[in-house]
Amino acid sequence: MTKPPKGPPLSDAELQANAERIVAHMLTRDGFSKWLGVSVSNVKPAEATCTLTVRPEMLNGFGVCHGGVTFALADSAFAFASNTQGNVAMSIDNQISYPAPAREGDVLTATAREESGTDRLAFYRVDVKTQAGTLVAIFKGTVYKTRTPHLPEGT
Amino acid sequence: MTKPPKGPPLSDAELQANAERIVAHMLTRDGFSKWLGVSVSNVKPAEATCTLTVRPEMLNGFGVCHGGVTFALADSAFAFASNTQGNVAMSIDNQISYPAPAREGDVLTATAREESGTDRLAFYRVDVKTQAGTLVAIFKGTVYKTRTPHLPEGT
Amino acid sequence: MTKPPKGPPLSDAELQANAERIVAHMLTRDGFSKWLGVSVSNVKPAEATCTLTVRPEMLNGFGVCHGGVTFALADSAFAFASNTQGNVAMSIDNQISYPAPAREGDVLTATAREESGTDRLAFYRVDVKTQAGTLVAIFKGTVYKTRTPHLPEGT
Amino acid sequence: MTKPPKGPPLSDAELQANAERIVAHMLTRDGFSKWLGVSVSNVKPAEATCTLTVRPEMLNGFGVCHGGVTFALADSAFAFASNTQGNVAMSIDNQISYPAPAREGDVLTATAREESGTDRLAFYRVDVKTQAGTLVAIFKGTVYKTRTPHLPEGT
Repeated sequence: MTKPPKGPPLSDAELQANAERIVAHMLTRDGFSKWLGVSVSNVKPAEATCTLTVRPEMLNGFGVCHGGVTFALADSAFAFASNTQGNVAMSIDNQISYPAPAREGDVLTATAREESGTDRLAFYRVDVKTQAGTLVAIFKGTVYKTRTPHLPEGT
Repeated sequence: MTKPPKGPPLSDAELQANAERIVAHMLTRDGFSKWLGVSVSNVKPAEATCTLTVRPEMLNGFGVCHGGVTFALADSAFAFASNTQGNVAMSIDNQISYPAPAREGDVLTATAREESGTDRLAFYRVDVKTQAGTLVAIFKGTVYKTRTPHLPEGT
Repeated sequence: MTKPPKGPPLSDAELQANAERIVAHMLTRDGFSKWLGVSVSNVKPAEATCTLTVRPEMLNGFGVCHGGVTFALADSAFAFASNTQGNVAMSIDNQISYPAPAREGDVLTATAREESGTDRLAFYRVDVKTQAGTLVAIFKGTVYKTRTPHLPEGT
Repeated sequence: MTKPPKGPPLSDAELQANAERIVAHMLTRDGFSKWLGVSVSNVKPAEATCTLTVRPEMLNGFGVCHGGVTFALADSAFAFASNTQGNVAMSIDNQISYPAPAREGDVLTATAREESGTDRLAFYRVDVKTQAGTLVAIFKGTVYKTRTPHLPEGT
């Protein structure tokens, strides 16, 4: 991470570059997002969008998308968005509601954005929608911001 | 489902047999629980326990178990437990907190039990612990109880 | 309630008039909102705004606004908004996060709106802000929609 | 607060005495708990019980106990319990479910206990029951533990 603790503030371009590098770094290690087939887009400081297609092995005992899959998609978008700003952010609490089921073949898009934050905490909102725009999950997430940088100096 | 709407109350043995049949029926269709390697035990009316082992493809960008996997295990235990009583129960709201991370190789056990219920709603609690007894997730779930039976008459 | 179960759909003006009558009816009985000094505005189908001023007897052991007061304001806005559509809606689950404290003398405004709904359930979001626009609470609420009308026929 | 940062560990009797002093100190300032008529009992490190009687001015538009009152009682028990251990703990996220309504005249008891904790975070559970033992609220709360001591040295 090139951000010096007490140096001049980073430019918008540097903040954006750091956000993209951190998400790329996280993705290389994230086996579960890979299995889910998650693609990440729209990465900005405190924002990220994740997309997946519901496959047969993602269904539950009722033949609709397992809540754990929808949750994992929202949780991944939340993790990427909340870690874009330099230091490691750890998920503390999540709440999810399911207004409608998702089905096999649906393309689900999770859009995460920070709603409010302090020095040590941040509160995120994630909406999960189908390709038809149906809202299938409303997710709230809280992170604790550690002092540990994501990327080593000079990388 | 052999439960007649206005017949005599079922015996404990019949309630237990129905719970087991419903969970077995759900499991045959539950592709995601299969992929997770979930095994189900301790099925009783309004209770169920689920277990999985954390595999490399279940890790996240920090190299620990993805929150979506822990959530999915808790959610499966919740779904099995809340559907043991004859009619289809649909998950409405879930809340999860992560007191500690789970790691590759950990054997996670999720124990679901009903805390309170009304005619149309029920509130569940699920604890997820490692083989060492460390609490890695505290999950709360609410279901809406439909009037749709799980199993057809006479099956 | 003038809405006949199978009659012609109500006009927008009738829906608006019903929303206002239900909220007025609820307010006459709502002793706690009165004690809080809650005023209600912007009542529309599935929306309501509530405002209060933080008084000394609303502070907690840290000298800031008690979480129960902020919650109650959000919960009142949620209750009014979710009951505007004719039948009694009962609160099931609520989740609240506190991005910042509210202080004595602050004028807090809670804005509730429905995010999604089905035949029997609805999901609301309430933001609570100070007069300066600081977000002091993010509230999510779920209601179960009963079949019981708020107002008797012909009233 | 007499706890030196690096001195010998406190005895159980000292921990208990500190818990009681902190709660007594918080109560003297807590105007809202006073208005609610909350009494506090069973104070121990990471535990507290709060009780109130539902008065007419605590009812909502349906003539039952306002959710904000039940929440506030649970939140007070949570605040006392989570602040018993020396440093100021701040509430981050709360979730509450209402299995049953409380009514005028009911004596509600909220029992808070820590379920899990780390260096900087702790997770609490609060049950609220009536005098008849009916569970009227299930509350989950998360605190962030600051490094700020409650009581000055030598008090």
